[in-house]
Amino acid sequence: MIVYDSGKEEYQNWMVVESEFSPYHLGKFESIFSLGNGYMGLRSATEEFYYGETRDWLVNGTFNKADPTEVTELPNLADVTQVDLYIDGERFSLEKGKVFGYQRELNLKDAELIRSFQWESPHGKRFEFKFRRFVSLAHRHVVGMRIEVKSLTHEADLRIVSCINGQTTNTGAQHFLNGVPRIYDQDLLEYVQTTNDSNVDVVIHSRHELLKNGQLGDVTRSMLMARRKVGVEFSLHLMPNDNLTLEKMNTVYTSRDQDVPNSEELKRFGLKQVRNLSNYDLLFEKHRQAWLDQVWNRYQVEIDSENPFDQLAMRFSIYHMTVMTPAHDERMGIGAKGLSGEGYKGHSFWDTEIFILPFFTYSNPKVARSLLTYRYLGLESARQKAKENGYEGAMYPWEMAFPDDGEATPLYGDIDIVTGERSKIWSGMIEQHITADISFAIYQYVQVTGDQAFLDEYGYEIVLDSARFWASRLEWQADRGRYEIHDVIGPDEYKEHVNNNAYTNYMAYFNLKLAIRYVDELKKSNQELYEKLNQLLNIEDAYPNWLEKVEKIYLPQPNEVGIIPQDDTYFNLTQIDLSKYKQQTQARTIYKDYNQEQINGIQVTKQADVLILLYLLEQTFLKDDVHFNQQLKKNNFDFYEPRTLHDSSLSLSTHAILASELGDLDLAYDLFKHASDIDLGPNMTSSNDGIHAASIAGIWSIAIFGFAGVRLTDSGLTVQPNLPKEWRKLSFNIEWHSETLHIVVTHDEVSISKSSDHLLKLSINQVEYKLANDLTVPLVKTSVINNKL
Amino acid sequence: MIVYDSGKEEYQNWMVVESEFSPYHLGKFESIFSLGNGYMGLRSATEEFYYGETRDWLVNGTFNKADPTEVTELPNLADVTQVDLYIDGERFSLEKGKVFGYQRELNLKDAELIRSFQWESPHGKRFEFKFRRFVSLAHRHVVGMRIEVKSLTHEADLRIVSCINGQTTNTGAQHFLNGVPRIYDQDLLEYVQTTNDSNVDVVIHSRHELLKNGQLGDVTRSMLMARRKVGVEFSLHLMPNDNLTLEKMNTVYTSRDQDVPNSEELKRFGLKQVRNLSNYDLLFEKHRQAWLDQVWNRYQVEIDSENPFDQLAMRFSIYHMTVMTPAHDERMGIGAKGLSGEGYKGHSFWDTEIFILPFFTYSNPKVARSLLTYRYLGLESARQKAKENGYEGAMYPWEMAFPDDGEATPLYGDIDIVTGERSKIWSGMIEQHITADISFAIYQYVQVTGDQAFLDEYGYEIVLDSARFWASRLEWQADRGRYEIHDVIGPDEYKEHVNNNAYTNYMAYFNLKLAIRYVDELKKSNQELYEKLNQLLNIEDAYPNWLEKVEKIYLPQPNEVGIIPQDDTYFNLTQIDLSKYKQQTQARTIYKDYNQEQINGIQVTKQADVLILLYLLEQTFLKDDVHFNQQLKKNNFDFYEPRTLHDSSLSLSTHAILASELGDLDLAYDLFKHASDIDLGPNMTSSNDGIHAASIAGIWSIAIFGFAGVRLTDSGLTVQPNLPKEWRKLSFNIEWHSETLHIVVTHDEVSISKSSDHLLKLSINQVEYKLANDLTVPLVKTSVINNKL
Repeated sequence: MIVYDSGKEEYQNWMVVESEFSPYHLGKFESIFSLGNGYMGLRSATEEFYYGETRDWLVNGTFNKADPTEVTELPNLADVTQVDLYIDGERFSLEKGKVFGYQRELNLKDAELIRSFQWESPHGKRFEFKFRRFVSLAHRHVVGMRIEVKSLTHEADLRIVSCINGQTTNTGAQHFLNGVPRIYDQDLLEYVQTTNDSNVDVVIHSRHELLKNGQLGDVTRSMLMARRKVGVEFSLHLMPNDNLTLEKMNTVYTSRDQDVPNSEELKRFGLKQVRNLSNYDLLFEKHRQAWLDQVWNRYQVEIDSENPFDQLAMRFSIYHMTVMTPAHDERMGIGAKGLSGEGYKGHSFWDTEIFILPFFTYSNPKVARSLLTYRYLGLESARQKAKENGYEGAMYPWEMAFPDDGEATPLYGDIDIVTGERSKIWSGMIEQHITADISFAIYQYVQVTGDQAFLDEYGYEIVLDSARFWASRLEWQADRGRYEIHDVIGPDEYKEHVNNNAYTNYMAYFNLKLAIRYVDELKKSNQELYEKLNQLLNIEDAYPNWLEKVEKIYLPQPNEVGIIPQDDTYFNLTQIDLSKYKQQTQARTIYKDYNQEQINGIQVTKQADVLILLYLLEQTFLKDDVHFNQQLKKNNFDFYEPRTLHDSSLSLSTHAILASELGDLDLAYDLFKHASDIDLGPNMTSSNDGIHAASIAGIWSIAIFGFAGVRLTDSGLTVQPNLPKEWRKLSFNIEWHSETLHIVVTHDEVSISKSSDHLLKLSINQVEYKLANDLTVPLVKTSVINNKL
Repeated sequence: MIVYDSGKEEYQNWMVVESEFSPYHLGKFESIFSLGNGYMGLRSATEEFYYGETRDWLVNGTFNKADPTEVTELPNLADVTQVDLYIDGERFSLEKGKVFGYQRELNLKDAELIRSFQWESPHGKRFEFKFRRFVSLAHRHVVGMRIEVKSLTHEADLRIVSCINGQTTNTGAQHFLNGVPRIYDQDLLEYVQTTNDSNVDVVIHSRHELLKNGQLGDVTRSMLMARRKVGVEFSLHLMPNDNLTLEKMNTVYTSRDQDVPNSEELKRFGLKQVRNLSNYDLLFEKHRQAWLDQVWNRYQVEIDSENPFDQLAMRFSIYHMTVMTPAHDERMGIGAKGLSGEGYKGHSFWDTEIFILPFFTYSNPKVARSLLTYRYLGLESARQKAKENGYEGAMYPWEMAFPDDGEATPLYGDIDIVTGERSKIWSGMIEQHITADISFAIYQYVQVTGDQAFLDEYGYEIVLDSARFWASRLEWQADRGRYEIHDVIGPDEYKEHVNNNAYTNYMAYFNLKLAIRYVDELKKSNQELYEKLNQLLNIEDAYPNWLEKVEKIYLPQPNEVGIIPQDDTYFNLTQIDLSKYKQQTQARTIYKDYNQEQINGIQVTKQADVLILLYLLEQTFLKDDVHFNQQLKKNNFDFYEPRTLHDSSLSLSTHAILASELGDLDLAYDLFKHASDIDLGPNMTSSNDGIHAASIAGIWSIAIFGFAGVRLTDSGLTVQPNLPKEWRKLSFNIEWHSETLHIVVTHDEVSISKSSDHLLKLSINQVEYKLANDLTVPLVKTSVINNKL
């Protein structure tokens, strides 16, 4: 069903292919084949309708609350992709007739979706079909579509119905007021819709050009209009060997766009733009070139592996990270499913900062900066959340949508199998580590980029106000003479309402320590800014408080066998046989046997919790403070890995990176494969609600941080490769303090080269340049790159 | 595709049958096979999904405005009817595999929908299916469903997914807030939803009982919950000859219900009720008996015709009038599509008063009274509308939903082919004759029933306040020395913004005359009530004004060749060849060639306008005043019939009745057939948006008023039969001043008999009793029944 090796020559390891159509696995390919450009995401539902499809078109940053009982989400726009074909009055569908040579391919290099096959109708007439589609990276408002039909054997009457259909919903929730349809020149469709709460205007146009045997004419058009729908129906007659080509060029503009001139009415602007578009071939060529320039020539991650799948998986990862990320607008974040589906409603979680941001921080820092600025824009609402919860400072929402809109976590989830009711979601209230995670990401970003301007403008304020939150959040335990943090959810969401989740406590500690460090720095280096921040956040009063409290935070220590307790009760929970759930191909099947309350009592972990703590903190100035040495990591890995179901897609990359570091390269490689498989693998249902953004970033992370062993230290970067035996060579670009480094890792050596300013254009012919002899080291030795190159 | 003669023996002429399934004609059978009980209507979408289906479940009187830019409508409830069947993992659909012996029948007598066939899967496994469904007339909150599957040839794994699905919308408009799902006992589903504006709570329960070979057990259940959806999945294995029976008994309660004890929480009440329901067979038997008692034994319309289709059509008419009419609740009206679809949004038009009400007035006056009371409840908002438009009195809305909610006509309609924009709908502003139509219906109701109590309580007030409206609406033309009415739409909606539409002017005249008459009566007979109404409506001042104005209203008179001009300009409009549109099978095709503005300039009429005026007013005390004699009728019939496209389904019955009266019985019979065919005929698309309520009532009206020639006079009733040659005998019951009359018309004689008080129970064995010898008269003679029998 899914084929990985069909790309040939220049497209070798660039093609993901669906080789057979199944109406039962629509969601898989809709998600993993989704198109986008960060501005918008388009699920790849086929032109013709199938039962069970989810036809989504999402524009980032257009959040709306359809209904006051729900939380805000990205609204599903009026659809342009569905095109119904009727042949001699019969609706074309692959569920009928016979199909030959079916192939739907996502061409990662060109970011184009192509579907082709021959089809014999139930009446024995044979046709050749080809469907092409792209979401332009060069012109972010454009969705290009092209349909080719050729009659191979018989005469036939064709009817083609092409609409802008505003009857779409998000799983039944309608975000838009009834829109205003209009048709110009018989077949140029317009639909203007406005969200019902956030008042975002959306203007959609679809321009058609239908050619028969390359000629205009000989086609009848009828205009269609219905409630929330506008369309055109083309009728024509094909003789054997006649062909038709229908190009449908679509644009979308919204009142959130920053690239629309203020002076122009959105509708008129959109109409002008769509009328000015050139044809599919020309627009596609610009798009293809943009992918080369902006994506493939920049990141240059090449894997020489026994399994070519690994290279494909890496490209799949970079493809989707590009598609999902709103690089153009700092008012927008990355959704947990990117823009590939309705899952998690387009909200941003800690997934961004801890799992996705490193890719951008290390290889496209401008985008990382934009994503962190999004958090800065959320600072005021984080302050509001702190206040509402009786705390000080900034308490970030667990789920963030519009940055100034506060907590966006829904209140209810899936069924509770015991009560038959919806289960309550507590994360929005008590999963609080997100606030420290953002500070961590800022620290990491600044360490890697040296972007002091970001720190001055945004970073300090976030980190300091987050520290104020933690200082107010700590609970003094007089009997134990220490500060604790009670009633939280840690990264392991299978444990609700726990006390002293290790990850949370340590990260709060980190956040306070970082704030102290930043204040110390600031006082020395930038008195003016310090004063400004002091005025805003009253640092003078807070700072001594931080100093006093931070040393008394309870940081759970390893027990007698070297295991850090995940929380106060974890070691005492019931142990059950987890093998049934460890072997599952579907996530969260444990909920079919236990409800949340019961799972709270079982020694089972949803995803990396203590382990990610071990991975993160050693990359900070706390390295020597926390002493997470190899033995400790091994002890904890061996304890937690069997108890971790990886029921969150965030989990595998951490385990894989640690396994690499601990030298268990077979396990690490296995986990890499597992992480790649979450979306790209043969499981036909796991991606139904959308791709797993953090997991997809994890593919890159495992390679770079696991196999190449890139690690941040407080004073620089180390490269300590652990290449699995299946890989012969790994090469990639990273950016380090405004310089592009090209790193090549083999089993024998690491080479690191520095390019001129114009790396992207020179890279292909670039001569490898070694920074210093000692930077090329044998395997398992460490190479250090200082902050100042 | 549609078969009329498949009913045998006791079901002869009681069955409408779809003999072959087509996925392209779903709307037809969804509508004409729709089930209901006046409380609710259920479109007959099949259990399994098909593309293009419209799956509607509407409860009367639950109006909601999904969106402030639209008008209120009946919201489509969460669906219970869809049940997905998977056989060996493959979704059952009649578009796949082979079908044998397909039959879907609406049994009009039992009001049950039954679908049966054998189906061979694409893998050659053969099964027998039977689906049954009813909406109980005995227990108005119940929808009973029963599914039987028998494996004929092979073993097979079956999965059955049965939900309450709240993702449904009205063509994309979502009326409900996200609901609250719950499951009891593994498979008792609950979904509670509330409309987003009108705050109507809706509680839905679905109880399942699945038997395999008549036994419980051996079935796996999994609970399903998703956004706006709750369900259960049954899995079981069938051996050859094994069968399964799934009963799904559904209930719906809403906060608008008057039969739910105030003391009980709706959800708890609904849950208790669904748990107490007996099984399909027992519930169905009560339902069947209710139809016999309340419907078939009451109306007893029997047609002995050469074409048995005529009897079927009559039963179809009575079936749908029962199904669509909220006999239980005077706060509710009849929608233009009944409860069979989303068309016209459940709103009440003049269709009720002029076309549907006569059926109830003459044969179930309690229901007629309830429907007129609905208009009384709308009086306050009619006053509001008058005020907003600068008039006095009560100006009824063209479309009415919640009685106190005012005008509900949408502002925009279908595409304007010239501008490409939506066309504007003017009816809500200027189609004003509705106010006089309601007064006419009150007059008719009171004349037929003698229900003085209704008149005292409601009728006088409506008629007098409507007269106040008309008095304020009249426009004095000094140059012509008369009152005119400008800028209206008459019944012929192909003419917008006309002056002196004959129908409107005459009906305003009637309304004022009726008010004067009622005031005269009241002053004599009920001084106390007169005083009360005077206080309320200031009759004392208004009355002289009416007297003065009414005589100066311009009533368009026949021209030199005896034609009454439809309006001031009609005679001068362009004449075009209308044959193309007269021959159409689809209504309103003229809009494909002309836009409304252009049609305004063409001598073409959408529907009976002058002709219905001729028919109505001669049945009032104005008969001798207006002098609409036979010659005048013939002149106008001959002029307007060729210019009338019958593009409204309201039109045919009037023309048929007049053709009967004018003695053109072949044409009359032909028009009867046409009227019957609008929904019941072979046209597979005309009923897509729902059945045509007024047209369906017209089937009865043509028979009773056309062929039996029943006519109201100011002093009684006349019966002047015009039986077409195809009919041998027509017999029916009507109620006249609280007595049930049984009327039998043949080509030779009319007999009218009067029953005892308990007609309904006695009717079958009743001995025909002749009122008086002179009431049995030869054909074409007139029999008169006086008000006092």
